[in-house]
Amino acid sequence: MTLRKDCRKIMLGCALALVAQTAMASKYLAMGDILASSKNTDWRVLDPETTLYVDLPGGRVIIDMAPRFAPLHIAKIKALARKRYFHGLPINRVQDNYVVQWSDPRASSDAVASKAVAPEFDVPLIRDMPFARLPDGDVYAPEVGFSEGFPMARDRKLKRAWLAHCYAMVGVGRDNDPTSGSGQELYVVIGHAPRHLDRNVALVGRVVQGMELLTSLPRGTDAMGGYAENQKPLIIKSVMVEADVPLAERTQLEIIRTDTPTFAALVESRRNRHEEWFFSPTGHVDLCNVPIVARPRVCPKPNCPR
Amino acid sequence: MTLRKDCRKIMLGCALALVAQTAMASKYLAMGDILASSKNTDWRVLDPETTLYVDLPGGRVIIDMAPRFAPLHIAKIKALARKRYFHGLPINRVQDNYVVQWSDPRASSDAVASKAVAPEFDVPLIRDMPFARLPDGDVYAPEVGFSEGFPMARDRKLKRAWLAHCYAMVGVGRDNDPTSGSGQELYVVIGHAPRHLDRNVALVGRVVQGMELLTSLPRGTDAMGGYAENQKPLIIKSVMVEADVPLAERTQLEIIRTDTPTFAALVESRRNRHEEWFFSPTGHVDLCNVPIVARPRVCPKPNCPR
Repeated sequence: MTLRKDCRKIMLGCALALVAQTAMASKYLAMGDILASSKNTDWRVLDPETTLYVDLPGGRVIIDMAPRFAPLHIAKIKALARKRYFHGLPINRVQDNYVVQWSDPRASSDAVASKAVAPEFDVPLIRDMPFARLPDGDVYAPEVGFSEGFPMARDRKLKRAWLAHCYAMVGVGRDNDPTSGSGQELYVVIGHAPRHLDRNVALVGRVVQGMELLTSLPRGTDAMGGYAENQKPLIIKSVMVEADVPLAERTQLEIIRTDTPTFAALVESRRNRHEEWFFSPTGHVDLCNVPIVARPRVCPKPNCPR
Repeated sequence: MTLRKDCRKIMLGCALALVAQTAMASKYLAMGDILASSKNTDWRVLDPETTLYVDLPGGRVIIDMAPRFAPLHIAKIKALARKRYFHGLPINRVQDNYVVQWSDPRASSDAVASKAVAPEFDVPLIRDMPFARLPDGDVYAPEVGFSEGFPMARDRKLKRAWLAHCYAMVGVGRDNDPTSGSGQELYVVIGHAPRHLDRNVALVGRVVQGMELLTSLPRGTDAMGGYAENQKPLIIKSVMVEADVPLAERTQLEIIRTDTPTFAALVESRRNRHEEWFFSPTGHVDLCNVPIVARPRVCPKPNCPR
């Protein structure tokens, strides 16, 4: 009977150890494994009405716009895109570790283009606003996390929410007058997150493909990265709303949803890196260090219907 | 008597208002004004024995090395530089929003170059270690600030200090084995601060000039930003210790000291931006958002004697 008892003990111990090992293994998955085992429902297809294609000589930059945060600016940008306003404009500012920016040098002579849009620097924090909060805090805001695929900060005392200036975020340039942003001048963050711009300017979305086409541009040698007269700026071929582009010419992308257990696991995999290379996992992650991954659209059928 | 009393009151009020205004004005100086009114003693000249020149076809990248934090790695890198080991090596990794890296594809056949250096991922926190602490906290470390011109984190419980992976920091590549870093493979941070690398790899210094020569390189299309076979990597002309470069060919630079009231004012000017453009100062600043400014050396005499 002692043997049977011992065996039971040993087998129970073994079983428990196996369960623990499995739990540990799933806790310590690396991001690649998490993405590989994700379900199709962990991803969302870009909405053609809020997706902007910035076609450059070297390829396509795709912007996922955030209408919840800047509806007026996005409406204006879409209207300008539909007028082909941005076609042929120069990328005339590339400031290292800061922003790439394009604008119309003659905007002031265009009353419609230069017409200011009411500031959308933050929005009311409403009860049902999606928010996957990060556990590690933030230097700039009381709380940070993700809302519908965008890095977001919020202040429950002030009852305000706003998008955060992480790498690849897209904003609307303005002059010193905070009410002067018109939407004809757009910038993309290309360096360390300039979070001091949060709540000072309207963010409208995020580049989800093609950042390398912007970040590798020669830096402008004039003040604040402006292109000097002897520098030839890159010329934008076209900026179009995806919905206006023929189906065959669209780029089929999907973005990881930020309100799922899969995304929570992804965040955890970045808080504690368990890839073999890592020696000392940090146990923390900064808002702008969590990748919001995009991938080619996986279609349930041979074609990707809308 | 009433008039005299009233006048006294008014004059006192005026005087107090003037004093307050002056105090406010100095409190709310912008960084440019602070630098313009700095004294020569607010700056330190780079030490030629711990300064590395990475000469590229497009210009010079200058690295200010931090011997307090990685003396063994820096000794090894200097020894390799003095053997002209880095001359002609390719910049064979450019990963967007992460790092630029160069290394010797044939390092493994060179026993000296590939010989590992003991890890220097952090150092003991000693009592007199210079540290200008930032007041706004940090997501990754208990305390962060600046030590002798470098962004530093420290943990007083663990009694350890380490350099932080901010934009422009220079580190020593290694394989999965934490003890495998040899100093022949160096990387520079070109994106949002990858602070999860802190204490996982040896940082040896910071690029103080020429970042734009690295950040504007085409991104590598292989895994992790490696250059593919059809991509032509930039070839390094030479890497030299400044002390070995003839005086006439040196770049005379000085870096803002981080242990002065002037630097404290600079930090404050970044915590609350009062340039006219800003609408809403944040009241906080992230370690990697404080610029550690370099400028051409200001010499007391026509020549810059060492």
